[in-house]
This record gives sequence, structure tokens and C-alpha cells, in this order.
Amino acid sequence: MYYGRLENPPKLFIPGPVKVNPDVLQQLARPTLGHRGKEYAQLHGETVDMLKKILFTNQNVFLSTSSASGIWEASIRNCVGFDETVLATCCGAFSDKWADVVKKCGRNVDELKVEWGKPTLPADIDKKLSTGKYAAVTIVYSETSTGLMNPVYEISDMIKKKYPDVLVFVDCVSAMVGLPMKFDELGWDVAFASVQKAFAIPPGLAVAAVSNRAMEKSKTVPGRGYYFDFQEFAKSAAKNQTPTTPAIPHIMALHYQCTRLLKEGMENVWARHGKMADFVRGWAKEKFDLFCEEKYASNTLTTVRNTRGINVSDVISAVQKKHNVAFGNGYGDLKEKTFRIAHMGDITIDEMKDLVGWINDEIG
Amino acid sequence: MYYGRLENPPKLFIPGPVKVNPDVLQQLARPTLGHRGKEYAQLHGETVDMLKKILFTNQNVFLSTSSASGIWEASIRNCVGFDETVLATCCGAFSDKWADVVKKCGRNVDELKVEWGKPTLPADIDKKLSTGKYAAVTIVYSETSTGLMNPVYEISDMIKKKYPDVLVFVDCVSAMVGLPMKFDELGWDVAFASVQKAFAIPPGLAVAAVSNRAMEKSKTVPGRGYYFDFQEFAKSAAKNQTPTTPAIPHIMALHYQCTRLLKEGMENVWARHGKMADFVRGWAKEKFDLFCEEKYASNTLTTVRNTRGINVSDVISAVQKKHNVAFGNGYGDLKEKTFRIAHMGDITIDEMKDLVGWINDEIG
Repeated sequence: MYYGRLENPPKLFIPGPVKVNPDVLQQLARPTLGHRGKEYAQLHGETVDMLKKILFTNQNVFLSTSSASGIWEASIRNCVGFDETVLATCCGAFSDKWADVVKKCGRNVDELKVEWGKPTLPADIDKKLSTGKYAAVTIVYSETSTGLMNPVYEISDMIKKKYPDVLVFVDCVSAMVGLPMKFDELGWDVAFASVQKAFAIPPGLAVAAVSNRAMEKSKTVPGRGYYFDFQEFAKSAAKNQTPTTPAIPHIMALHYQCTRLLKEGMENVWARHGKMADFVRGWAKEKFDLFCEEKYASNTLTTVRNTRGINVSDVISAVQKKHNVAFGNGYGDLKEKTFRIAHMGDITIDEMKDLVGWINDEIG
Repeated sequence: MYYGRLENPPKLFIPGPVKVNPDVLQQLARPTLGHRGKEYAQLHGETVDMLKKILFTNQNVFLSTSSASGIWEASIRNCVGFDETVLATCCGAFSDKWADVVKKCGRNVDELKVEWGKPTLPADIDKKLSTGKYAAVTIVYSETSTGLMNPVYEISDMIKKKYPDVLVFVDCVSAMVGLPMKFDELGWDVAFASVQKAFAIPPGLAVAAVSNRAMEKSKTVPGRGYYFDFQEFAKSAAKNQTPTTPAIPHIMALHYQCTRLLKEGMENVWARHGKMADFVRGWAKEKFDLFCEEKYASNTLTTVRNTRGINVSDVISAVQKKHNVAFGNGYGDLKEKTFRIAHMGDITIDEMKDLVGWINDEIG
């Protein structure tokens, strides 16, 4: 019964987890290692070295056996005192949730909300930060619930110039690898993603870049706990280890994917995502409309506004039935009003051409 | 270079991660799923249902994308108030570390220490609990650093009778599945393990049983955070989901292993571990000595006292070089004074016969 249904699940063009190629899946099936042995240390060290090149950082890169939501919590528990306040910029379901996590960690938070699908603009953040009230700001680079890409370059420039003491935490879940990101240049303090998005690996591991000043700050914050304590990560990283037993299958797959990414070159990887996005957006504009203003539409997923009043669920089901692929309905309140197509990682432009062709067949 | 060394890593008889069979490894390489789709809900639901039978519980079973150390922290953050005190029973490196985690979570802790290799006895716990000072007690069932098995049945009986209001948290990392454990009968509140021990799956997932009264308690504790919040787990479990994106490859492997375990029957699984342990202990007593008194020696790993003064590192290296298998040196201060052999999960008695034969060849 179970194997009947799951033997041949649909190829995933939902905005994560996304399709994983068979050669990558096989990396997960390699014999496992002792996590305190030299084979693991080599795997860990080489993976982190590659990630530093991929993220353009000379600072800290940690591998966390968790989803990226664990790093939402880690950024707060490590770098924000109980008497400090966070400015959470909210533009969709996941940036909203992060604000909620700040509260759940017992910290003060002010939410700077925009309408879903609209960007958070530097001037709005500037106005809030000018009060001098905030120790840190949370930003989502690419909001997976809406496909909105925030203008993180302009925001980062403004903060670097005017508020150099405010820590900057950036959720890069559906951005990392797919969208241009040079961690050190941007002056960010914590940036992170899960591997089931543009790294094109099944879920179960998160990658976090952490600045040296975030590490210093974390030394001063009490009650950090153990599992997500950046100080523990750093101590173990010095030995090419993790503090707790890591998800070795995923790290093998990550090593494999990092090798491929560096061979392609990050500028080329970003450009490839741009081309796929242009194609999908071109189709969306012709047949429907974009949910976000094109300037702020992410290159890793597209949210299409259902201007034709189609029954989105029916179309998703019909395409899945005929072609065994899945794309996403709108998120939460945007269900049926929008739908979402992922174009990141090892998804190809040819797969996108097939997919939109199949959607065209359904909508007539 | 990396593939040269890691292509054929040693078969693992260290006390975890342990050897994983090729058919189990292949479960990790199955196409991934959307974690909010019906295929995942089926996988999750069936896995949890099987785990409830395996752990003999009608209460809550959660799948945590973390190592078991994450549940050290979860038990404290969820079930212990900031003004409450935990009695941590300490008998080795991992029980010590758990006491440390209690402190790192900002809670009060008293440590009840015994010499490494000695059990924590009910009378000693009784004496401490009789002060009325403690809200919870932490116990390790099988202490992986020493191979010591605590008398958890006698301890649990005593606590149930005399201190029914004290919450009982049990680290079952190298115990779960290998040693008899009926969660509801024992009256425990949180019991957990990682999958890289007797479940014989690569690392990257933890399994936790949580009592209903622990769930009630957790509602009253502030600052639980998000990633390890039992309330979030329960809310999602009702939909056969996890709050955050789970390690789907590991859950596929866990489903596969649970199916096999139930087919064998838990009494048989425990007896099989007992037989393997008897064999290894028999050899250890003949050639060396046991580190722990036999009554308190775990059935999942054996710590051998190096009574012959062999160079343990050299023997481990020689056996690895000739036969491509790894067993463990003593932990921490016990290095060279002891060594450790795992006999759990899919390790067979024939593999144990080979291994001790190869050790015999080296020690003459």
C-alpha cells in the first residue's frame, strides 16, 4: 500500500523540496562514517571550504542538522539579549513566522509589515532603525510563500552606512545559490538556507554563514542552549566536526553538489537561474500575470496571479495525473488566487518548457 | 582524493554510527516528497504508528530532524520551569553532557555522580528526591561512553511509587530497540534516541516518545522556542506532519526498519541483542575483562577492560587495515584503558565472531 503510492512520487516543481537528480540521491546511499574519524573530517572540511567560496565569505560556515527554521531560532538565541528588541520585516508567511519565533524565544520584536507580494523598502527600514531601538533586523531574501525578492542590496547598503551596529539576519532559504549573494560584501551577520531548495538535495540539513561579530556577540548572550549554540559549532568546526552527530548522508550530497556548483561557477549558476526565471515569467505574463512586480520577482520561483479564474487545484491534479509532476497552489490566503512554480537547483529550462506546455493544455 | 578515501570506508562496529545494510541505505536514495503532501502524510503516519508499537506507547511519538542531543535540550526547554531544579544522574560522558545542557538552558541542576562504569542505584536517587527539591530527573539507559546499563526498571518503579510527580527523562540513545523498553509501563515522560544506533540508519534523525503529562507541563513553560517545541510537534502530528521540513530520506529508512522490527517481534529483537552481547562478553571475559559489572553491561555495546596492556590504537589500526572494519577506543580518559565494540541494529553474531577472531590474531 505504502510502496504502491510512494514508489513513483511526482517530480517536484513545488517551491521546495524540489526535484533531486538520481546521481545526487545516490550520494545519500553511500556507506556511513564515524563522525569523529578522519574520513568525516575530510568530508566536512572540504564541504565547508567549498561553501565559503560559494557564499563568498572568509568568516564562519556551519552545517546544522535541522531545517533552516532551526537557524531562525539560532540567530535569535545566540545574538539577541533578552532586553534587546528585534525589527522583523514581514512580507509573507515565512518572514511572519520568523517574527513569531523571536517572540517564542522570549525576545522583544516589532514587526514592519508590508502587503504580501510587495517588497520591504530601505526607506521603511531606515525610518524604524532611526529610532535607535533595535539590536538586530530580520529580512527574508526570497519569500517562498509569495515569490517576492526583497531589495537586499539596497537594504544592506543603507544599514552598513547608517546603522553599522545593527546585526543583520537574512533568511536565504529559497535564495542561496539561486540568487547572487556575497556574504562578506553584504555585511550580513547570519544567513542561512536548507538544502532542499537551490542546492537540490532532499531535506534534513541547513547551511549557515555567521559573521565574526555575531560570534563575539553570542559569547555575551546567556541561555543559548546547546543544540544551536554557535560557540559549540565553532569549537567543533576547528576540528572539522559538528558538536552533535550530523546528517552525514546529506553532507555527502552537499559535497557533491558544491563540487558541481564551483565547476560551473557561481556567476553562471546565478545567470542560469535568471534565464529559467525569465522564461517562466514570460509565459506567466502572456497567459496570466505575475503576482509580484517583475523587479521584485525571485529568480528561483514564480508566483502566477490567477487572472483567468482557473480552478488551480484541478489543473494541478490533472497535470500530476497525466505527467506525474507537481507544482504548487498559492500559499494560505493566496490559494486559488495564485499558483507557484519552482525553477531552481537542478530543474532545467526544458523541464519548465514541458511544464508550462502541460499547463497550457489544461487551460486551453 | 576525497572519493579515494571515502569510497570504501570501514564497516562500523564503533558504538555509533553503526553499520548500515545496503538495502537500508537505498531507502535514503528514494525520490523525495513534498512534506505537506499526502504521500508524506502516509509515510509519517505509518512510521509513527509502527514506532508506537515498537516503544509500547499510546502517547506521543515525534520525529525530530536533529541528533538525540536536540531532545536533551527539548526535554528541558519544554518541561522544566526556570525556577525549577533538575536532578541529573551522571555516570559517563553523555549523562554528564546532558547535565551541562540543563545549565546551558538556564535551569538549575544538581548532579548525582557515580564513578564511570558503575550504575546509578535507586537508593541514591531516592535519597536525593526525598528532599522534595526536584521537578525532574535525567537518566541514561545505556551510557555509550562506558557500555554501562543503568537499572532503569528498579529506578522507574521506585519513582512511580514514591515520587509520582517527578518527571522522568530517559536518554535511550544506545538502548532504544536494542534493550527492552515499554514506555507507558515504565511511566517515563520523555525517552529518545538517534537513528544511527540500534535502528541501524545513518545519522540525521531522532525519535522521541513524550507522555501526555509532559505535554501538559510544556504548555506552562515560557520561552520554549520553536524548533523543539513539543506543542508545535503535537499540532503538526495531528496532520501526520512535522512543524518544520523533516529529514525525509531518514524517515523512509525508518519506515523500512520499523517494518522489519515488527515482523521480527520486539521480544525477539531484544533477545537477539542479548545473544550477541553474551557472545562478545564471553570473549571479553576470556581474553580481557569487562569494564562494567556484567549485571550492568549493556546488550548493545561492550566496553572491554584492557587487562593485557595492549596498544589499543595499534590493534584498531591493524584490524582496520587488514579487514576494513572499525571498532572503538575507550572514551575520553578511558582511552587505551578500555575499548568498545558495538553489537546492535543490523550487526550479526557472525560479524562479531569475525571481529573478535581478527582481534585475537593481533593480540596473539
